[in-house]
Amino acid sequence: MFDPSGPVLGIDPGLSRCGYGAVHPDGGQPRAVAFGILSTPLGDPLPDRLAALEADLTALVAEVGPRAMAVERVLFQANVRTAISVGQASGIALAVASRAGIPVTHYSPNEVKLAVTGFGAAAKAQVQVMVQRLLGLATAPPPDAADALALAMCHGSSARTTEAVGDTPPGRGFEAAVAAAMAREGAR
Amino acid sequence: MFDPSGPVLGIDPGLSRCGYGAVHPDGGQPRAVAFGILSTPLGDPLPDRLAALEADLTALVAEVGPRAMAVERVLFQANVRTAISVGQASGIALAVASRAGIPVTHYSPNEVKLAVTGFGAAAKAQVQVMVQRLLGLATAPPPDAADALALAMCHGSSARTTEAVGDTPPGRGFEAAVAAAMAREGAR
Repeated sequence: MFDPSGPVLGIDPGLSRCGYGAVHPDGGQPRAVAFGILSTPLGDPLPDRLAALEADLTALVAEVGPRAMAVERVLFQANVRTAISVGQASGIALAVASRAGIPVTHYSPNEVKLAVTGFGAAAKAQVQVMVQRLLGLATAPPPDAADALALAMCHGSSARTTEAVGDTPPGRGFEAAVAAAMAREGAR
Repeated sequence: MFDPSGPVLGIDPGLSRCGYGAVHPDGGQPRAVAFGILSTPLGDPLPDRLAALEADLTALVAEVGPRAMAVERVLFQANVRTAISVGQASGIALAVASRAGIPVTHYSPNEVKLAVTGFGAAAKAQVQVMVQRLLGLATAPPPDAADALALAMCHGSSARTTEAVGDTPPGRGFEAAVAAAMAREGAR
């Protein structure tokens, strides 16, 4: 299912709401291939919810054919109970990626915010607005999907220095698009 | 893969060392069907380690054919980093159980220690010795495997009041065996 010319799939892991966003860097103008939220019924037993998330993510990977997966690093959750729940969901996502032969990179929330807004402590709403503008979407994606799209763009951006990223011409990558969108934002 | 007459499979989740132990309550004398430790190479990428654990657990479940899975509850780990790692491993185990149609019950470490030693704050070594005696093993199992075997017996024990547990005659379950083994322990 690994496709070297496929998009980057961002995953914001969670059991109640798992955000996903696949972005293709088409010649410098990033394009959203798919995004949304995978959720499992709160009332279902935990094992069934994890198995459902795994099935959904496996189907998503098969459909999107990503070249890489960018997953939010979950080392600094507020409390242990949340950390375990996010750990369970992220473990499922990582195993799905490995089975499909897709390389995974972790990014901290700050790295992601910095990449798409130029500001590591940006608010959720700022990330949503910048993701909407960078990808030319009609409306702002919901928060978890916006985070996942931002993760994908963060990878497309930072990975440029360490790996060949498809057909993007040198110097016309996300950095230029981010700078342009930020300039537009600043000019409003 | 769910077998109503199969053993109970205890799982002590962990990424570096995942203990497992399958126990069959044969007519009141619990019998170890299988036990050991699943481990994944420390140097491998995390996604590959999680996928390997999933493959190992799936094969184990297919081989053992458990009626139920008893998994250690991981809500009170010492720190967030450990909690995430244990959460990732436990998430994999729970998803494997769900896919195989095996019901899962969580038990806290204290419940497990209480069930097999009569003392909720028992030391690891005490659990190992009691597990060895209750199951009539020649040597004490390694700590993580002993915990998993104890989990399985904890389920066999506490589940007695809420579900039919195979062919065990009433009043000749783990409780009697635990009491007898504890009496032997005390008499030494």
